[in-house]
Amino acid sequence: MSLENFINESASKWMEGNGPESDIVISSRVRLARNLADVPFPHMMNKEQSEKVISEVYDAIQNNRVLAGDFELIRMKDLSKLERKALVEKHLISPALANNEYGAVLLSRDEGVSIMINEEDHLRIQSLFSGQQLEEAWDLCTKLDDVLEERLNYAFNEQIGYLTACPTNVGTGIRVSVMVHLPALVMTNQLNRIFSAIGHVGLTVRGLYGEGTQAIGNIYQISNQITLGQAEEEIIDNLNSVTRQIIEQERTARGLLLKEKKIKLQDKIGRAYGILSNAYILTSEEAMRLLSDVRLGIDLKLIDNINPRILTEMMVILRPAYLQKLAGKELSPAERDVRRAKIVRNRLSVKKTKDSGGVY
Amino acid sequence: MSLENFINESASKWMEGNGPESDIVISSRVRLARNLADVPFPHMMNKEQSEKVISEVYDAIQNNRVLAGDFELIRMKDLSKLERKALVEKHLISPALANNEYGAVLLSRDEGVSIMINEEDHLRIQSLFSGQQLEEAWDLCTKLDDVLEERLNYAFNEQIGYLTACPTNVGTGIRVSVMVHLPALVMTNQLNRIFSAIGHVGLTVRGLYGEGTQAIGNIYQISNQITLGQAEEEIIDNLNSVTRQIIEQERTARGLLLKEKKIKLQDKIGRAYGILSNAYILTSEEAMRLLSDVRLGIDLKLIDNINPRILTEMMVILRPAYLQKLAGKELSPAERDVRRAKIVRNRLSVKKTKDSGGVY
Repeated sequence: MSLENFINESASKWMEGNGPESDIVISSRVRLARNLADVPFPHMMNKEQSEKVISEVYDAIQNNRVLAGDFELIRMKDLSKLERKALVEKHLISPALANNEYGAVLLSRDEGVSIMINEEDHLRIQSLFSGQQLEEAWDLCTKLDDVLEERLNYAFNEQIGYLTACPTNVGTGIRVSVMVHLPALVMTNQLNRIFSAIGHVGLTVRGLYGEGTQAIGNIYQISNQITLGQAEEEIIDNLNSVTRQIIEQERTARGLLLKEKKIKLQDKIGRAYGILSNAYILTSEEAMRLLSDVRLGIDLKLIDNINPRILTEMMVILRPAYLQKLAGKELSPAERDVRRAKIVRNRLSVKKTKDSGGVY
Repeated sequence: MSLENFINESASKWMEGNGPESDIVISSRVRLARNLADVPFPHMMNKEQSEKVISEVYDAIQNNRVLAGDFELIRMKDLSKLERKALVEKHLISPALANNEYGAVLLSRDEGVSIMINEEDHLRIQSLFSGQQLEEAWDLCTKLDDVLEERLNYAFNEQIGYLTACPTNVGTGIRVSVMVHLPALVMTNQLNRIFSAIGHVGLTVRGLYGEGTQAIGNIYQISNQITLGQAEEEIIDNLNSVTRQIIEQERTARGLLLKEKKIKLQDKIGRAYGILSNAYILTSEEAMRLLSDVRLGIDLKLIDNINPRILTEMMVILRPAYLQKLAGKELSPAERDVRRAKIVRNRLSVKKTKDSGGVY
């Protein structure tokens, strides 16, 4: 897979939406923060030191026969601003990495793993799975971590664990998160109650693109806040258990809406589908809001003939940088709104059976 | 044609929309107010006198070989409230007639003519044509007037003309009106200017169901205010000339929108079509507003495969009493909104070629 593919192809493996509970849990992610013992943290590094980190990490992967062919190294300095933003919108790299000229990323072919180099820490090993698969994501991350540790000398302290640039990551260096679609809890005004409870068990809720971003399309990220004093398995168990409760509550809310407000629900979903299929101007916010309704309609079997993964795919495709990459040129916000609407119209006119992607 | 048909069949001849300028002028109407010389005006009449008027008018029509078979007499006292309202919504009788137990109407088979008996005046001879056909409507009315006058003794004064219950109708007793669809003038905020000019030439603008009603679906009625001191032909010429100017201005506005704001127009029209095709709840007001957009889209060839007469038909079918007649039972406002949406969804899924009515 070439760089162009990573940027231009919309469908990462995690977007296929065939994981467990994928009617509500869009994806599960685990990332580990690691640093090399003999190099200053990235914010203190010079160019030579950052090159040394990149080549050491790259060599460590290349040294493994299985992994060597599966990963591709992409350096930020080789990408345009638009290309970097497109990778952020695909959740393959973080905004922090995109802003670092000395950064790089090792991406797996199926886009399920990205190893960011010289982000806030020297290494950010990240794995993304469809549905509720935190254990699977953790298994993969820890295996990669073992492979890398064979060749790299990690900054590690017997007392407190892995050392990181920011103290909030010290210890396990782990951040686990699930991305959940909660339209019924939003419609029934239950989110504030649930999210405030989540805060009390050491978890935090964010928007689609991480800290400080707003929830769009009723999609939320729930992740752990604590990295120190808890084993990785404990952290994962905790998030898994909370996610199961949220799934339960979202399903109950969906059932209630279907039972008591079916016609209003059908109306809301029908209108969303009708507008998406026929509008000529769509902002990103409106598109995601309506796609959330359509996805709920698919999940509740009020709409058929549309592939449920439309929400996840469009979540990426309709973002500004991605749209411009697809167009092959810079677009004004107004031009993006027109192009976004065209993509959605075309997408919704493709029937489920022909739904093999690549029609944009 | 039976009474049931008048109430249940949606398609009057004037709705076919094949008259001249029917992209803008929905219908042309002429009505003549007449009274019998030897009977008090309706508001002063007793039951026997009202019966006498009905039978005299009926006999006058029956006496004419051509007309006899074409007209059917319907008495208000034989109709339920809902049935009367349905006839009002079809523009076949006035609200005033519907409220009069002693009233009656003679309806022609094609619903192009209705002779209301014991409305505000003893006779209201009314003729309704598709498109801009005021002369044709006037020709028909005056011929019917002649036939009736052969047998009836009209209240007539050589100095001032026909005598009527209300002085605003005295003289010619004529009211001519056109029903026009002016979406582009509304969108470009030009209506106030135009309507204020109309007031200065003795014409008046009203909503869809006459005096005091609001314009819905960008449809307006323009009619003469003066009945005294002008010949019928002069009144008709005046309205015809103003209508031609309005047509011109609406077409210019449509052209301008198409040239300068095409994508916004496509978006508005597309969304309207999308919502109408997929909503499960539609108020009368919203349905008409969206149908106006769709009709504009058809006229501007931005939408195909939909018969332009959808606007005119739905204008009648989606009204509360008509909906309830179709349902065969009383419906709450919420039930009407659900049924209205269903009718529109079904209607829009019927392709133009199959568009022969009767699918509701």
